[in-house]
Amino acid sequence: MFDANRALQIVLELSGTFVFGLNGALTAMEAENLDLVGVIVLAVITALGGGIIRDVLIGFLPPSAFRDWRYLAVASGAGIIAFVARRLWVRVRRSITVFDAAGLALFCVTGTTAAFAAHLGPFQSAVLGTITAVGGGTIRDVVIKRVPTVLSSGLYAVPAAGGATLTALALEFHFYGGFLAVGAALLCFAIRMIGVKFNLNLPTSRPHL
Amino acid sequence: MFDANRALQIVLELSGTFVFGLNGALTAMEAENLDLVGVIVLAVITALGGGIIRDVLIGFLPPSAFRDWRYLAVASGAGIIAFVARRLWVRVRRSITVFDAAGLALFCVTGTTAAFAAHLGPFQSAVLGTITAVGGGTIRDVVIKRVPTVLSSGLYAVPAAGGATLTALALEFHFYGGFLAVGAALLCFAIRMIGVKFNLNLPTSRPHL
Amino acid sequence: MFDANRALQIVLELSGTFVFGLNGALTAMEAENLDLVGVIVLAVITALGGGIIRDVLIGFLPPSAFRDWRYLAVASGAGIIAFVARRLWVRVRRSITVFDAAGLALFCVTGTTAAFAAHLGPFQSAVLGTITAVGGGTIRDVVIKRVPTVLSSGLYAVPAAGGATLTALALEFHFYGGFLAVGAALLCFAIRMIGVKFNLNLPTSRPHL
Repeated sequence: MFDANRALQIVLELSGTFVFGLNGALTAMEAENLDLVGVIVLAVITALGGGIIRDVLIGFLPPSAFRDWRYLAVASGAGIIAFVARRLWVRVRRSITVFDAAGLALFCVTGTTAAFAAHLGPFQSAVLGTITAVGGGTIRDVVIKRVPTVLSSGLYAVPAAGGATLTALALEFHFYGGFLAVGAALLCFAIRMIGVKFNLNLPTSRPHL
Repeated sequence: MFDANRALQIVLELSGTFVFGLNGALTAMEAENLDLVGVIVLAVITALGGGIIRDVLIGFLPPSAFRDWRYLAVASGAGIIAFVARRLWVRVRRSITVFDAAGLALFCVTGTTAAFAAHLGPFQSAVLGTITAVGGGTIRDVVIKRVPTVLSSGLYAVPAAGGATLTALALEFHFYGGFLAVGAALLCFAIRMIGVKFNLNLPTSRPHL
Repeated sequence: MFDANRALQIVLELSGTFVFGLNGALTAMEAENLDLVGVIVLAVITALGGGIIRDVLIGFLPPSAFRDWRYLAVASGAGIIAFVARRLWVRVRRSITVFDAAGLALFCVTGTTAAFAAHLGPFQSAVLGTITAVGGGTIRDVVIKRVPTVLSSGLYAVPAAGGATLTALALEFHFYGGFLAVGAALLCFAIRMIGVKFNLNLPTSRPHL
């Protein structure tokens, strides 16, 4: 059972690494007018940040990002590609949001499976899956001096937690597989993009304070 | 000897987690007008941040915050309670300061004992106890784009280090117990609140630079 | 072979710790007008940050900075010295840049050797050496709310990576020694200072976006 799931895990993780790398690169170019090195650095920070935090918390050291050269290669490759093709980006802000949602979706699934494979319980795996999904974007935001999306946008942690929880239940009750993985990722992606489109938010605190 | 101290450790740690959770939640509502999710996220970051940093530095992975469900439950519970009761907070800024000082006081003691229990020497335990105490508030400040209190306020790291040092000496020379723990915490709390009340500071650098 | 290199490693590491401590202290005084405690805290953060990140990623816990009292002593000593001698700093901004470049240079060599000694491959060692070099300064910048130099300045990560790569090659092909270490550090320092002097930068992204 684990071989097909391992291939699935690697494909999803590298895909998430790639889209988060694009997101980090676009953010570096749009927000800060950084040069090529700065773009690559922010792409790598965004793409690998969540997974590194998760591996550190699990105790899986050195983190996957440093054991398998493909993660660093895909992350910096995404940065280089985005920089070289920078004149082609027409709707930059929308791309940034979509890539971020895609990375969120892929990582909330793969982060949970990675934690579960390290023998954490289903609840803990879901928590670590959520952290993996929001972690890279949060480090990216802090480094460019923005309030992290995980704080400012209600439907960011929630869809990530939803996808992670569904994945954790699937792993615990033995119905995890390719279809479930893609389904959980799509669910997370959809909720996030719906929240963005309709500008949905949970009740805020200020009116009453 | 260790059983009563273990119960004491858990009670103090959960109390510190709770008050730091309240502090994080109030900061989220007062400073940033975040919604319910943002409030819970910042409560959890503030409440668990210091302990997670300490456990990572000790090598105790996964950190206690993820092994024992009660930490996450108390931290998010504090966030929810603060949000639901938000109309009741009259003197918000004062509450924020008091809860932060209480968390600082409790964690400088429990952080030191946790490090000592992991077989670190007394000096190292005091350093890690200080880090545990100031860590959560520092991550909270960085994430909401404020200069961390540990840098801007002289009597923040000092009382934490004081309580941690007293605790470390007590552990090394075998006079640690309930009274000592509460005493060290009160000492830290008192010094911090006195510094706040009288706006005490150490000599600054700018006049001469 | 390892004994002379171990002494070399400690001398270079403590030197890098010292200059990064001076850099952190001067930054605290010039940028933020902090008091003595704040100056020491930022000195310690800048001086020990990179090495702590590296040791966490390698899995070498507790980090060297907490095992060997000299690191913390040198880091806080640098902070105290800088504060006490604050009226003597004439060209502060230049000193800040020079000390930062010196720390970058020393740590890109020692960070790589530390990773290699922990049995990481040459490529991974170079990556971790680069992270060790830029890590302390990055945490310093984030904490005082500046966009990190590693993002804003193209010739910051590049010289660090250059020195780290040369060191990694030397270790892998057995020609590492005192001369190579000093040479690699000087190479990194020179590239960084040349980039500063002539305000060199790689192509930026904004003109085309």
